[in-house]
Amino acid sequence: MKRIVLVRHGESAWNLENRFTGWTDVDLSPKGDQEAKDAGLLMKAEGYTFSKAYTSYLKRAVKTLNNILDKMDLDWIPVEKSWRLNEKHYGNLQGLNKAETAEKYGDAQVKIWRRSYDIAPLPLSEDDPRNSKFDPRYAGVADSDVPRTESLKDAIARAVPYWKEVIFPDRLNHDSIIVVAHGNSLRGIIKYLKGISDEDIVSLNLPTAVPYVFEFDDEGNLVRDFFLGDADAIAAKMNAVANQGKAQK
Amino acid sequence: MKRIVLVRHGESAWNLENRFTGWTDVDLSPKGDQEAKDAGLLMKAEGYTFSKAYTSYLKRAVKTLNNILDKMDLDWIPVEKSWRLNEKHYGNLQGLNKAETAEKYGDAQVKIWRRSYDIAPLPLSEDDPRNSKFDPRYAGVADSDVPRTESLKDAIARAVPYWKEVIFPDRLNHDSIIVVAHGNSLRGIIKYLKGISDEDIVSLNLPTAVPYVFEFDDEGNLVRDFFLGDADAIAAKMNAVANQGKAQK
Repeated sequence: MKRIVLVRHGESAWNLENRFTGWTDVDLSPKGDQEAKDAGLLMKAEGYTFSKAYTSYLKRAVKTLNNILDKMDLDWIPVEKSWRLNEKHYGNLQGLNKAETAEKYGDAQVKIWRRSYDIAPLPLSEDDPRNSKFDPRYAGVADSDVPRTESLKDAIARAVPYWKEVIFPDRLNHDSIIVVAHGNSLRGIIKYLKGISDEDIVSLNLPTAVPYVFEFDDEGNLVRDFFLGDADAIAAKMNAVANQGKAQK
Repeated sequence: MKRIVLVRHGESAWNLENRFTGWTDVDLSPKGDQEAKDAGLLMKAEGYTFSKAYTSYLKRAVKTLNNILDKMDLDWIPVEKSWRLNEKHYGNLQGLNKAETAEKYGDAQVKIWRRSYDIAPLPLSEDDPRNSKFDPRYAGVADSDVPRTESLKDAIARAVPYWKEVIFPDRLNHDSIIVVAHGNSLRGIIKYLKGISDEDIVSLNLPTAVPYVFEFDDEGNLVRDFFLGDADAIAAKMNAVANQGKAQK
């Protein structure tokens, strides 16, 4: 039996400020930091261990992973980072407040930008300082691969190949792998693994810092998947995520 | 010009308790955590950046590195971990209090164990639970390479090849590299780089969490090396390390 555990990063400072983040490199909030530590302690208490980790190029995912590994005394394991696990790029919405954007454009338009499968926000202009082509961390990525905006479909199209070609084959070297990433890159992987439709994937609201365990048989077939932790607490977290981005009164 | 910065981990909980640590995986103390953050802030303020990092398999080094990278907004860079950068193995002294050991055996004997070049403490027995052969993190290391004790000479003999064959050649891919490791593995590298004698290397007391900058020309010749930071504060830290292990009154 092989195990791969997916974890969405803990609450970020901009989750808290209710702003569109995307590829902006915002930090964890103190609550997010604690969520990550709690996830590590939970997995340790449940007897989990890992010999390999994957994460994105974004601080909130890397730090969630570091906190988890530290609480499991696994600081030493190899970690591979890839921009392909980054959050969906939010185009010219990056940095804007979700509730203000909803007031300005209406809940319906914001929901389209946040939750439609194949409609992307307007792209960042080439000279926008937020354009990731100016960020040295993407210097090693082909310019044609560096997004100026992404729909969920676009984000899935660059995340799933990384799952198929890098992470999943690595189960042959590692019985147990942890992947810490983002709401939308993880949606892509879960959609692929569970055969979820384009329509249904947009309403999958992953809770922050809750281990989502996938178990595979020796032929690589998915045999079981489940969230680790208290069911009521997980449901409450999923609702909180679903309600983000509605206009605040 | 290529730059490689060596950093000794911040104060550990056992530095504080004055116990022999070696390969024991003790955490940073709160002060050590802060020292690491300060080192990151200092390097950021001085305009340093890195595109590759190396560290050991031990938590106090990994967490020092993580703290430094986070303060420099470099959480995303690739990190390679190796047991070859671990601290000198302290054999059957691991876990014992330095001052109590000094009272029992005398300052002179403790100084031999701590500071001689080629005399190692007595080895851990094969069935000692502290024996690293039982630790899953070394499962990928040949048993003949997993030490039961080490002299400084032994530690250098496994650290320097890693410098020569892995870290130093990587300057061709990365203009600026950071290495966070331990007092004795770093002594080995510095001894090699600066041609320090067996006699003199034992009295090199590296300060904790102070960036030690090495600059190389395009042919790989060392052209300059210096500690980054306030000279008086660095001297005080070096003295503090030199005075550890003397019998406490």
